[in-house]
Amino acid sequence: MSLRYALLQVLQASPMNGYRLARFFAGAQSWVWSAPQSQVYGALGKLREAGLVAGTPRPGENGLSTADYALTPAGEADLLAWLSTAHPEPPVRDAVALQALGFDTVPTGRAVAVLRAHIAEQEARLAEWTEHRAALLRRDTPLLRERLKGQPPAAHRRIAEVKAMVFEREIDLARAQISWAHRMIALLEGLEPAPAGAPGDAGAAVASTAPPERLA
Amino acid sequence: MSLRYALLQVLQASPMNGYRLARFFAGAQSWVWSAPQSQVYGALGKLREAGLVAGTPRPGENGLSTADYALTPAGEADLLAWLSTAHPEPPVRDAVALQALGFDTVPTGRAVAVLRAHIAEQEARLAEWTEHRAALLRRDTPLLRERLKGQPPAAHRRIAEVKAMVFEREIDLARAQISWAHRMIALLEGLEPAPAGAPGDAGAAVASTAPPERLA
Repeated sequence: MSLRYALLQVLQASPMNGYRLARFFAGAQSWVWSAPQSQVYGALGKLREAGLVAGTPRPGENGLSTADYALTPAGEADLLAWLSTAHPEPPVRDAVALQALGFDTVPTGRAVAVLRAHIAEQEARLAEWTEHRAALLRRDTPLLRERLKGQPPAAHRRIAEVKAMVFEREIDLARAQISWAHRMIALLEGLEPAPAGAPGDAGAAVASTAPPERLA
Repeated sequence: MSLRYALLQVLQASPMNGYRLARFFAGAQSWVWSAPQSQVYGALGKLREAGLVAGTPRPGENGLSTADYALTPAGEADLLAWLSTAHPEPPVRDAVALQALGFDTVPTGRAVAVLRAHIAEQEARLAEWTEHRAALLRRDTPLLRERLKGQPPAAHRRIAEVKAMVFEREIDLARAQISWAHRMIALLEGLEPAPAGAPGDAGAAVASTAPPERLA
């Protein structure tokens, strides 16, 4: 359901064909929603059937014709209604937390390695969000440039600042996860290791990855 | 994929039948993973076929027989391998951020109402996480009591503190979202409203929900 409104928002900023839209969502590492190509084509087809977007044919590559899709008045109204209404939040499905719940059964060194990979991933995202937020405030992302073209100059500041604030959310969430992972590492390294016989104690070969001074 | 390991972790703590397992995941508002009943039965069936869990038959209600599922040695090994390995993080799909990206096109009053609903939802989750974390530190959740029964007393502190730290993550993420939503409200209320003719300006009936002093 959210993908439909992700598509409508992108097409509202910049009409594009299915190929470019699918590429946007497949490569949307620093955007707030990503989707595989097949889902994007499927959702675009449904939007067209529902009359929420309409294509303007134009010559494509290799002599084939293509169509750039833009919102119809019905599509604009549907998007505005969705944006203006509170929706139930999705149920919690936190894969990192799910894995960490079992760290009491894992040799400390292995758990710490998993947490360090999590920190690296979140730091990479944090760098991307930070750059994307700065680009929005400079009014200098491809999508924002397209969107601003159709808007009166008096509206530009509001548009750029609201969108930049959304990426502040992603920055905050990445920072919270990095901070938490460091605290989890400190906790694991400060606790007594799992005693022999506990789940996860797979014998000396595995136990030897725990810090030796904690075996006492 | 994560659901499979969510099931294995719960069944490792406490063998249960499919009905009780499905109820756990359907009502898991203050746990880190939730799933509808059909998904839980499907995943449990696959774990059984793969030999990762095995059922011990016992008399159920109404004279029917049922079976409590527990991990086989292969299931224990599979869970430990998953817990000990870093996995790619899921792609970003942040429905709240997706909606907020369009708030530049929405009357301020409507956007603020959506954000207040988000704050209320996150405050409710924050209260649940906080209580759950405290219960874990008291070693007093149903699942933790079951798990500790099978563990040597020397391991209890490590188990409880690691699990409590996972809920500290959820507490941090809820707090970050609440703080961000308040800042987004302040930003929207401090900015000039969308000028007439901008997307989302649906005429006087809608515009009148914006604070009157900002119409000047």
